[in-house]
Parts: sequence; structure tokens; C-alpha cells
Amino acid sequence: MDRRSVVKGAGIASVLAAGLAACGKKEDATPVAPAAPVAPAVSTGSEIRWRLASSFPKALDTIYGAAETFAKKVGELSGGKFTITVHAGGELMPAGGVLDGASNGTVEMAHTAPYYFFGKDPTFALDCAIPFGLNSRQMTAWMYQGNGLKLTREFYAKVGIVNFPMGNTGAQMGGWYRKEIKSVADLNGLKFRVGGFGGKVLAKLGTVPQNIPGGEIYTALEKGTIDAAEWVGPYDDLKLGFNKVAPFYYYPGWWEGGPQLSLYVNQKAYEGLSAEYKAIVECAAAFAHTEMQAKYDAKNPAALKTLVGQGVKLRPFPNDVLGAAFKAAQEVYKELNDTNPAWKKIYDDYSAFRRESNLWFRFTEAKFDSFMQSQKL
Amino acid sequence: MDRRSVVKGAGIASVLAAGLAACGKKEDATPVAPAAPVAPAVSTGSEIRWRLASSFPKALDTIYGAAETFAKKVGELSGGKFTITVHAGGELMPAGGVLDGASNGTVEMAHTAPYYFFGKDPTFALDCAIPFGLNSRQMTAWMYQGNGLKLTREFYAKVGIVNFPMGNTGAQMGGWYRKEIKSVADLNGLKFRVGGFGGKVLAKLGTVPQNIPGGEIYTALEKGTIDAAEWVGPYDDLKLGFNKVAPFYYYPGWWEGGPQLSLYVNQKAYEGLSAEYKAIVECAAAFAHTEMQAKYDAKNPAALKTLVGQGVKLRPFPNDVLGAAFKAAQEVYKELNDTNPAWKKIYDDYSAFRRESNLWFRFTEAKFDSFMQSQKL
Repeated sequence: MDRRSVVKGAGIASVLAAGLAACGKKEDATPVAPAAPVAPAVSTGSEIRWRLASSFPKALDTIYGAAETFAKKVGELSGGKFTITVHAGGELMPAGGVLDGASNGTVEMAHTAPYYFFGKDPTFALDCAIPFGLNSRQMTAWMYQGNGLKLTREFYAKVGIVNFPMGNTGAQMGGWYRKEIKSVADLNGLKFRVGGFGGKVLAKLGTVPQNIPGGEIYTALEKGTIDAAEWVGPYDDLKLGFNKVAPFYYYPGWWEGGPQLSLYVNQKAYEGLSAEYKAIVECAAAFAHTEMQAKYDAKNPAALKTLVGQGVKLRPFPNDVLGAAFKAAQEVYKELNDTNPAWKKIYDDYSAFRRESNLWFRFTEAKFDSFMQSQKL
Repeated sequence: MDRRSVVKGAGIASVLAAGLAACGKKEDATPVAPAAPVAPAVSTGSEIRWRLASSFPKALDTIYGAAETFAKKVGELSGGKFTITVHAGGELMPAGGVLDGASNGTVEMAHTAPYYFFGKDPTFALDCAIPFGLNSRQMTAWMYQGNGLKLTREFYAKVGIVNFPMGNTGAQMGGWYRKEIKSVADLNGLKFRVGGFGGKVLAKLGTVPQNIPGGEIYTALEKGTIDAAEWVGPYDDLKLGFNKVAPFYYYPGWWEGGPQLSLYVNQKAYEGLSAEYKAIVECAAAFAHTEMQAKYDAKNPAALKTLVGQGVKLRPFPNDVLGAAFKAAQEVYKELNDTNPAWKKIYDDYSAFRRESNLWFRFTEAKFDSFMQSQKL
């Protein structure tokens, strides 16, 4: 796929940049562009036609594709009576405007990465990813069988939205760097295109987070206007060709260890559904949730091999970087616990789950994986 | 839960023991007990009533529970018109007889661990778990987005079954041992209650695999008739109290790094379903698939803490045990590749996926997890 055709749209990271303009605290004064005028949702008997606003461009077949899978399954499950049309970011409203869109009923549904809305309230990020948070499997366990879905639904009820887990990218990469990062000192003054909580924590280490739209990252890296940029992982990154202008590819993306995407359903619209259609929404979202992670897991390996074959220098972040970032993240969480009761209520449960889960995963899962990863297979 | 109430039923491992009697090569001469006479499946218009034979006892709420979740979701998705009754192992047919039951249409559906049928053909195990195989996430990726579902469906078509992934336990534990395992030499002569491929590989190291029904394991361990026994993981194991008679709890369960359960649907019955009901089966199974892994991930941590609090001695297998077992497993796979074309066709794809996947997972996922597991959270 041509890089230009991708960067014209907004990727997961560039959407964040766009989203901030729409929903960041500082920019709250900027009015969200009104949604394009659209035909009202049609609901005749059991025939329903709904619209889903995605925060993503069609070129991100992984994430945008999850909403398409969801819509397809809803159609199949309902014998074609429940139709959902999927609209790419920017088509009906700005990519960062979908929270408001689903909240006020401009659309019945949205698909997004909730941490885009951390500027409104950092609590949204707990339904997606926070630095040094839960990995993909842990996030699904917390949502489905811990208190995750219950607690985040209480939070979303305040904005008239019912949320469903719908996709996870798995642990993302730590981004593309023009120069090697040898220690935490190299982060000081680094102009790094990164969004959300990652930026908030990195700023404590002297990094200068940059808010650059997706289409301008390549050129900014090439010209040296920025020193580094993060995107997603090998499969999505390969399309953008960052490796040609920033050869060092770092891991792990500690600010996104298992980011979950969410389906938003306008609460009033949801409550108007029959029990059958409610179940259809839930199960189609679960199918798309599982399939999206599977897609990343199946597609990332070959993409990484291609990148390494093109001379990419794959590097782990030095331990002092991870240690300092972890410490800075705990400071941020302490501040939020002290000032934001909505955050504290969910974070207390989230962090207890994370602690217990990591205690268990370090034994049989970690030992099995590390042994397998060390073998010639 | 009382240990006796559990062991009266058949757990995942004891079912294997029972299953072998029904479907093992050696026992093929033993006729499978005929299914209890039952009313024929009712199908009036779009109202359908089907039966699902589980290989598991109700006491295994994790695995048996996945079939109940599936049936509940099918009911909800169909507005109550598609009803599935779930029957525990032994209720309609022996736990190990469900492959035949779904194949010949005695029941429309079964829920089982396909490696129980490795005696009929080891190829069945590739739809579940083989020693040093795929972990849970990798297995789901291979099934949903690799060639796993396509290839295993071709294989199952020969016995008139359509298979769907429906649950995974995650990496299991390596079992309970009366004495410490200090090196691979300690496996020589060890009387170990273990089933399936694990036993086949362990036999190459001098271990004497034991085939003991679930209800007799505790007493056998207590009396020293056997030296060790494997079951599932902390949550399921805790109920059985093995720690009182075998204090050493080893990990990882290298013969079950991510065992997947499968839903079997009789092919003719499946083909008679409308497109809508076919989608309902697929999505309800996907929901149960994801929820079952989430349940284990949410419940195992507390159970492990309880066990450790009761004095269980948690130990990793020594490296020479893993190394020797890995080598022995490769010998088994080489033999199968040379003699079983059905196995070879699927294993070639499976092992290529495993190789590529582990290459990728060793970077950002492993680094993120190992860092998190080493922190005070």
C-alpha cells in the first residue's frame, strides 16, 4: 500500500493528534465541527438502520476493519434486518468528535480508542490503555470477568453511552527514532510525536511531546523537525515507511501494553433495542474484539521480518528508561488519585487486578513463553 | 467446593482417562457404550431445539460453563427460538464418546478437548494442544486469522463435523509431585498421571504415564501408588486438594501451553441451519471462547495465592527437563510427519505459524510483560 494513501487518512496515533484538537482540555474552547447533515436513523418495526462513526481511516484495515466485521456480523445475526453503516473518521464528524457524536445521538454508535478523550477526563483512558497498564489478555479478563465492564459502564452512563470492548492491538512498539536511545538522558529534549498519557509521562523525563497530524510525520522526521514518532506496530507501521527516515525501532511501547478499542452505543438508542438485538450487539462486538487481536497477531510477524530485512535496527528501551518512566507514571497516577474521584474509583480496582494478574502470569505463562521464544522452532 | 463432589465427576484430565478407554487406539476394540435413548431433536419452522453433549462435569464451572454460556447466548441471539440443552459428560454418552456422538448425529453438538481423541488420530490434538505448541493468543490467531480453522475443518469434514474454537484454559500447570524434580533423571521411572501427547513425550524420558480416573487420583497420590498427577491450573486444582498429598507444584505445563476447547456441530445438522442461525452459532461460540479464557485469567491469581498460603511449593521445571522434553517432542513430531499425511498437512502450517509468532512475541510483548512482572505494583 502506498504510504501517501495511508497518511492522507488518520492512523491510530494521528487520530489522537486530531482528537486532541477536538477534545483536549486546552482546546475545549474550540467548537467541534458540526456533523455533516445526515438522514435520520430509520427504524421500522424490527428493521433497523444505524450509523457507526469510526475514529479511524479505511487504510487502517486492522482497526477500521473491526467495525466492518462488527457491522457484517450484526447483519448476519439479524437475518439482514439490523443494518449498520460504518463511516470513517472525518466522514460524519471529526475523528475526535465521535464521543460527543455517540453521546448526543448524532450517530447511534462509534468505534474509537477511548484514551483519545483523556483531555476531557483521564478516566476514559482506563477503558483503553495507560502507561504500564494491563496487557491485552489481562484487559479482556478485567473487562469480561473482573469489574472492568461494570465500572467503566457506570462512568460512561454519565455521558449517555453504553460501552463494549471491541478490539485490541496487543502491546504496541515504542516508535521510530533517528538516533539511538542509550539511556534516559537521551530522552531529555527529545522532540517525540506521541499522544495521550505516554506524552504526559515522557514530559516528566524532559521529552517534548509533539502533536503532529499523521500526514506530516514522515516529512517532519525526514527534515529533523522531530526526533522520533510512534505509530502502532510492524503491520501498520510498515505501510508508512518511517524506517527510511528513522532507523531505530524501539520496544516495548510501555504506554500502550494492550490498548483496547471500544464500541460506543448511544444509551437511549440502546435501551430502545429488543433483548435479541442487544444480544446481537454484544456478541458481534465480542467477535470483532477477538478477531482484531488475532489479525494483529497473525500479521505483525511477517511485517517485522520485512522491516528487519530492510535494515531496521530493533532495540529494547534501556532498563533505566523503563525504570524512570515507570516511576514517573506512578507520580501521575498518585496525582490523579488525589484529585479525580471518578479516576480513583476505577483505577483502584484496575491496579489491584493488574497486581494480582502479573503475580500469576509470571509463572506458567511467562515460563512457557520464554522457553518457546528461546528455541529454534 | 467439596473435593468429593468434584472428583465424582470427571475433570479435564480425568475425562482424558475416561476418554482414552472410549477412543484410544488400544481400546478401539471396546465398543463405546450406546447413548441413552433420547427424544429426537425437534425442528418446527424456525423453532429449533438441539442437544449439546459436553465432555465435562458440571463441577468444572470454567470449562463446562463455556457450553452453558454458549447455549445462553444462542437463546438470546435468536429471541428464544433456538434452544440448546447442555448435558454433562456421562449424561447422554461417555465423556470420551462425544466425537462419535456429534459425528453420527446422536447429538447435534458437543463441547470437548479434541486431544482426547489422539488415539483415533493424533491430528485431533492440533485443534487443541500439543507439547510445546501455541499459547492461547497464538492459537486464537492461528484459528481466526491463520489457516487453523480452514485446515482443521477440512480434517473434521471427514467425520461429518464442523468445528468452532470455544474456550482456552491458558498455559496449564505442570502438576503435583510428591518429591522434588531436580533434574531430568528424576522423571525416570516416575509414575505420573498424565494424558495425551504429554504422556507420549514423557515416556521417551522414562516416565511411566498413568491412566487413572479423576475420582481416584487423590487416593493414589496419598498412598503413593502414583508419584505425581497433573490437572489444570490453580482455580480448578484448588478444589481437589492435591496439595495436601503432593506439595510440589511445577510449571509450566509444557504439554498444554494453550489448550483450546472446541464446539463440534454435526455437519448435516449445521447445513440445515439458516444463514442467520449459522451466524448465531459462530458468534455465540466466539463469545464463549473469549469469556472462558477471561474467566481463567480472572480466577487463577487468587487461587494461586491461596495455594501458596497453604504451603504449596511452587517450582519451575529445571531447564534440562524442558530441554529433554522439547527434544523428545520433536522426535514424536518427526515420526508423525513421516507416517501421517493428515497430521503433516496441518502440522506444517501450525509449526510455521508457531515459529513466526514466537519470533514476534519475544520483542514488545515479552519485554512489556517481563518488565511488568518484575515491578512492585
